[in-house]
Parts: sequence; C-alpha cells; structure tokens
Amino acid sequence: MKGIILIMDGMGDRPLKELDYQTPLQAANTPNMDKMAEEGINGIMDSIAPGIIPGSDTAHISILGYDPYVVYTGRGPFEASGVGVDVIPGDIAFRCNFSTVDEDGIVTDRRAGRIREGTKDIVDVLNTMVLEDYPDVKIIFKESTGHRAVLVLRGEGLSDKVSDADPKVEGNKPKEVVALDGSKEAEKTADILNKVVAKSYEMVKDHPVNLERIENNEPPANIVIPRGAGAVPVVEPINEKYEVNSACIAETGLIMGICRFAGMDIIEMEGVTGGVDTDLNVIVDTILDQVKNSDHDFFLINIDGADEAGHDGNVKEKLEFIEKVDEVVMSKLKDLEDVILILTADHSTPISVMNHSGDPVPMIIKGPEVRKDDVCKFSEVDAAKGGLCRIRGSDVMNILMDLMNNSHKFGA
Amino acid sequence: MKGIILIMDGMGDRPLKELDYQTPLQAANTPNMDKMAEEGINGIMDSIAPGIIPGSDTAHISILGYDPYVVYTGRGPFEASGVGVDVIPGDIAFRCNFSTVDEDGIVTDRRAGRIREGTKDIVDVLNTMVLEDYPDVKIIFKESTGHRAVLVLRGEGLSDKVSDADPKVEGNKPKEVVALDGSKEAEKTADILNKVVAKSYEMVKDHPVNLERIENNEPPANIVIPRGAGAVPVVEPINEKYEVNSACIAETGLIMGICRFAGMDIIEMEGVTGGVDTDLNVIVDTILDQVKNSDHDFFLINIDGADEAGHDGNVKEKLEFIEKVDEVVMSKLKDLEDVILILTADHSTPISVMNHSGDPVPMIIKGPEVRKDDVCKFSEVDAAKGGLCRIRGSDVMNILMDLMNNSHKFGA
Repeated sequence: MKGIILIMDGMGDRPLKELDYQTPLQAANTPNMDKMAEEGINGIMDSIAPGIIPGSDTAHISILGYDPYVVYTGRGPFEASGVGVDVIPGDIAFRCNFSTVDEDGIVTDRRAGRIREGTKDIVDVLNTMVLEDYPDVKIIFKESTGHRAVLVLRGEGLSDKVSDADPKVEGNKPKEVVALDGSKEAEKTADILNKVVAKSYEMVKDHPVNLERIENNEPPANIVIPRGAGAVPVVEPINEKYEVNSACIAETGLIMGICRFAGMDIIEMEGVTGGVDTDLNVIVDTILDQVKNSDHDFFLINIDGADEAGHDGNVKEKLEFIEKVDEVVMSKLKDLEDVILILTADHSTPISVMNHSGDPVPMIIKGPEVRKDDVCKFSEVDAAKGGLCRIRGSDVMNILMDLMNNSHKFGA
Repeated sequence: MKGIILIMDGMGDRPLKELDYQTPLQAANTPNMDKMAEEGINGIMDSIAPGIIPGSDTAHISILGYDPYVVYTGRGPFEASGVGVDVIPGDIAFRCNFSTVDEDGIVTDRRAGRIREGTKDIVDVLNTMVLEDYPDVKIIFKESTGHRAVLVLRGEGLSDKVSDADPKVEGNKPKEVVALDGSKEAEKTADILNKVVAKSYEMVKDHPVNLERIENNEPPANIVIPRGAGAVPVVEPINEKYEVNSACIAETGLIMGICRFAGMDIIEMEGVTGGVDTDLNVIVDTILDQVKNSDHDFFLINIDGADEAGHDGNVKEKLEFIEKVDEVVMSKLKDLEDVILILTADHSTPISVMNHSGDPVPMIIKGPEVRKDDVCKFSEVDAAKGGLCRIRGSDVMNILMDLMNNSHKFGA
C-alpha cells in the first residue's frame, strides 16, 4: 500500500459575492474531485490549529508530523535547502527577492518585473562577494524560481535575530536591518546584511543581464533584498519516524526545502513554474511514474498555482486552475489502486484577503478499506459534513500511516 | 445522577466488501442501540489521538482521564493488578502465556490449545519456584483467563528494560530475553527471566493437569512464556480526581488491572469469558444490580467479545456478538433513569486488519438534559454526523462529569 498527500497550495477560500457567495472551489466544475469525495471520507483540516494562519512552510511542517512551533526557525533555511544549498547547523539563511531600485535607492519593483531568466548569471557574480570587514564570513547566494533567491551566511558568531531588509511596499528604500535581541551576534549579522544589500547593487547594477533588461524596458534585477532569517534546525528523518521510503514532488524551493530537511528524496521536474501557467502534465506524469515504478511508498505532492492566484486576488485564474488540476491531474490519480490518496490544501488563500487566512481547508481520504460518508462534492463547506469531522495537520500522517497499516499499536 | 461508560472492546471496524462495504456495526441489526442514538447525542472518538493505534490498556487509561504517555509502563503491571496480585512500586510485572513446547523446546502452540481449566493447579506448583542464583527474588505467578497468566518479580535491583520471551510465531523456541539498555539491573532481570522460563518447563511438564491433557490429545500447558515487562506505576485515584465512588465491571484481567490502579472497586463476575461465548446475562444483571443497589455512582464497563472476533477476522461472529449485546444488554440499559449512559468502544479491531487500528470509534451519550441530534442509528459513519463531532478519549470523563453535574467551574 502506498500513500499520497496531494496538497493544492492555498486552495481554500471564503465565499465571494461574484460567485454567488460560493468559494472558487465550490463554484468550480470538478467532476473528478467530486467522485473522489463520494468514494472517500471527507473533513476539514486546520494545518496548525483553528484560526491560526499558516505559512506554506509551517503548514507542510505540521502536515508532515513535525511541530512547527519547535522546528520552524524562519523561512530562509527551508528555502535554501529547497534550492539545493547544503546548509549546515549554525548557518543563517534568508529568502531574497531580486528587486529593482532607482538611482536614489528607492525600490520601484520588489520582484524586478517578475524576472524569469538570467538570475543564475547574476548569482554567479554575487557569489564572488567578500566583505572587507568580515573576510571570514562565507556568503552563498543561490537563485530560486522567478525573482526569488536565497542567501546563506556561514561563519562564527552569527544570529537569526535580525529584521528584514524587505520594505514590503514599493516606493521605499530597503529597510535597514537591525538586531532584534540586542546581542553582539545579531548586531554583527545585521551589519553584514546591510553591507550585502548595498554591495549587491554595486556588483550587479551593470550586469549584462540587467543592461539587456533595461534596453528591453524591463525592470533590472539590480539589488538583492533579504528577509526571513532563520538558523538551520535539526529534525528526525521522516523515513525513520514513520518507517516509509518517502519522496517529494513539488514545484517550489520552499516545499522542496522542507521535504529535504525531513530527509525525503526530491523528485526533479522540468517545465513547472509554481504558477497557474505550470505544466500539469509534467506533474501528473511524474506522480504516476513514481507511484508505479519507484520504491517510494509515501509521497508529498504540492501544486502551487491556486495559491498564486489567491495572492493575486484573481478569482477567474484560481477557479480555472482548480478545474485544470481536476481535469489533468485528478482524472488520472483518483483511480490509482493500492493507494491511500489524501487530497487537501495547506491553507486558504482567499481572493478577498490576497494572502493566507486561518480558515480550515477541505480534505478527502480515499483508498481500500477507508470508511465512506455521504459527501458527494469536494468543497470547504461539503467537506465539513463528512466523516472525518475536523482534524489538525499534525493528525494527517498518523491517520495515513494507520490506513496504510504501516503503524504500530501503542499498548496491547 | 449516576454515570456509565460502556465500552464494547474493539467494536469499531472498516467497510467490508462482504457486507456491501458496511462495517459489522453498520450491518448489524441493533434496534436498542439505534434507539439510544436517536435519543442521545452522537460523535466519533479517538481514544488517544487521530490515527494513533491504541491498545485496550492505553485506550482505557486515556478514557479514564489519565495520560497514557505518562502512565503506561507496559502491559504487565495492569494485567497483574487485574488478576489480583497486589503489586507494589518496584515490582516488575509480565504478561505470560501458558504454551506448549515439544521435547526439543520448540513452541508448538503459543496458547496451549487455549486451555481453559487447570491453570490454577499449575500455578500452585509454579509459585514454589526459587532460583538458586537469586534466592532473594520473589517469583509470583497468577493465572488469568484461559491460557493467560501473569508473573511478578519482586526484589532489589530489577528493571523492566528487558525483551520478550514470546517468539510470536510457532515453530520457534522461546526467545532468549536480553537487556534493552545494557544496565546491570536489566542484565540481572533478563537472566532471571530466562531461568524462570526454563525452570517452568521442568516443574510442570509432568503436572497431572498436563498428563491428562496429553492423554486427551490436548496440547499441555508445559511452559510459561513472559512478555510485556513493566514497572509498577503510581496514579492519582479516580475517586479523588473526579469525586466519584467508582466501580469496574469487566471480563478481563487487563481492564480490571487498569481500574484497580485507578483505585476503582472491581465487581467480580462468574461465567464470563472475555470471548463471544461470554454470558451476557451475567454482565447485564451485574450492571443493573450495581446501578440500582450499590453506592457506586460511576461505572466503567467492558465487554470484550467484539475484539476477540475482530482479532480472529471472523465477521459473522463480530456482527452476531454486537447483535447479542444489543438484545441482551442494551435492551435493559437504555431506559435506566437518572443515569448518563455512554456507549462506545476503546478502539477499532477491523476484520480486515485482525488487529487494532487507529480508526475512530462511535459514541452515544444519553441521559437527562443531554442535547440530542439527528442521528438515528449507531454506527461509525452515522455517529460522525452527530452533535458531539470528534472528541478524544481524554475528554470523556470531563464530559461525563459535567453532564452528571459533578464537576467544578474553572474560574469564576
């Protein structure tokens, strides 16, 4: 028996007036998901706890059976691990955006026109950075998808108790990074970070990739702005904890990073973007190939597009992306044999909020011997009437392992 | 107002193809339980937590309001207490099977033909055992139901960190017991245990009970095989914790042992077996007598047969036993006045698994002033639609005490 947790990132939503007070998932035409709801058991899930707004990272940490309040030390380490930086305990890692600043240092585009190409060449230059005042600190950059990158600081006496450089709103300069706890280590790290931001502009403002972008009237990726400091945590490998052979099929570095920390194998995919324009055929083919032909018996799958549409507040894109996943992916997954299949989301990203919310997400569990209920449609509202009632992210792995007959009795 | 928790051991199940994808409880004809569901409030319960597979012991510990992760130190002490050994802190207790070995020491029947009679006489002989190398260690045997017995070691410098002698599968010799933590105490205890096993064979292989069994072509109970080592724990008496006067009505030593640890009075019954062949009239008469004529105001009742049928994978026996409990027991209990009656299970023992699983169990609570819901049938699937939603074992005593108006406000 194999087990799959398929997470539609940010799929949960709230009722929308323009959808006659339905959520995008309710309004979407999803015959395959509905069939799965009919054949399985349904419920709602709070990834962390009711009303708590999860990040995609903390939600996945919780769903994978780890306590995010213990493990989560900021987004940076997970993103860094996800894009392939071999972080080690003691490292301080940051998420970064390639951004655009004007000659006065004002951020004019936090995402550098959502740059998709050329960031690797820019990173090659940035990785030669050495700070005069801190020659012993190793500065490691790595590009991620789109405008995203990571920064890892490696050296003695560093701290993750530093503020973000990200000004959050365009029209401002990058924020001066400050120590959050007044420690010598945090003061040092903040100073390093401010110098890294300033130096990144000097080093890449005239990079050939940027000169070409300027010529094409595209915002140049002429500065790197870090945020989400985190010290690298240590976790018990998921394969030992649950006696599985696990793999991660995901589009974004953040999710891959979490799975990498959990010791999961990362299955690489070409042609996926983490957006609504991703190639869903690549994803479903990868899943089917892995389930049928690999020794892996547990899969964490993340499809990211619904979250992007939610953040953009684009109801049409969110609804259509859900329908596309139903048609391209769920049509092929729903009838897999000898599989316990869980379909859910990591959190809600309501159109009206344009960010994550603490609303619970719907869940279906389907497979041999799984109890059935009366629910016949997959949605936030229908799922709440189902036989799972309301569970937490931290319950998911235990329930899945039990249904796979892959766990041990506690007691006699 | 009196309170009853009636636990049908192992009653929960999964859908079965041969029952048209119903569970045995769904398929069973249970008019009395259904009436109770209609008149009460329904829900599903995870004895420990969703997906966690409970033992009968850890489930009951949790339902009685104790944290099994704190209290549970192995099955031995609970079983020993249950059959009436007055264990004291420091004792190391074990569950044992009377088994059959051949002349080469190979276990040919782990349960000695499910011996039902004569074990007391065998135990009388075993209780004269003294080990030459450990003259100060007191060796206490006590027979339990059927082929079951307990062993208690009392003395200085013993440990419960020892492995089982039970080979689990017939055709093997009893396993050599080893120290699990390398400590001197565990080494000593392991050595004692190996000597006890060997000596038990010498002492009882030619016991009159066994000679008679051999003559009748029944496997002799010619060796004792211990497992489930546990050091005796200390818990707060339930009568103090909840301000009740409590009693336990159960068939098996394991459940009686847990209740004895909790300081409950144990009501003895004659003619019960812990199997599907038990005398349910004895059980229901004992309950009615206790509720009507005793000063006890809280009862933990355990009826074991459904669990046995589940372990045996016998769908017909499980279904029929549930129907028999409905007819013989629930017909008389469901209309008790001035009683809050809770009907539930401690865990699922699905026919398809032939062992416990982590699937939640159904629950009804019925009594004066208890809220009602729309559920009209007692089953795993119907209960999930009820007004209790999904609760945990650790909630049960608090809910019961509240409905009995027997608990105190926390705050003002």
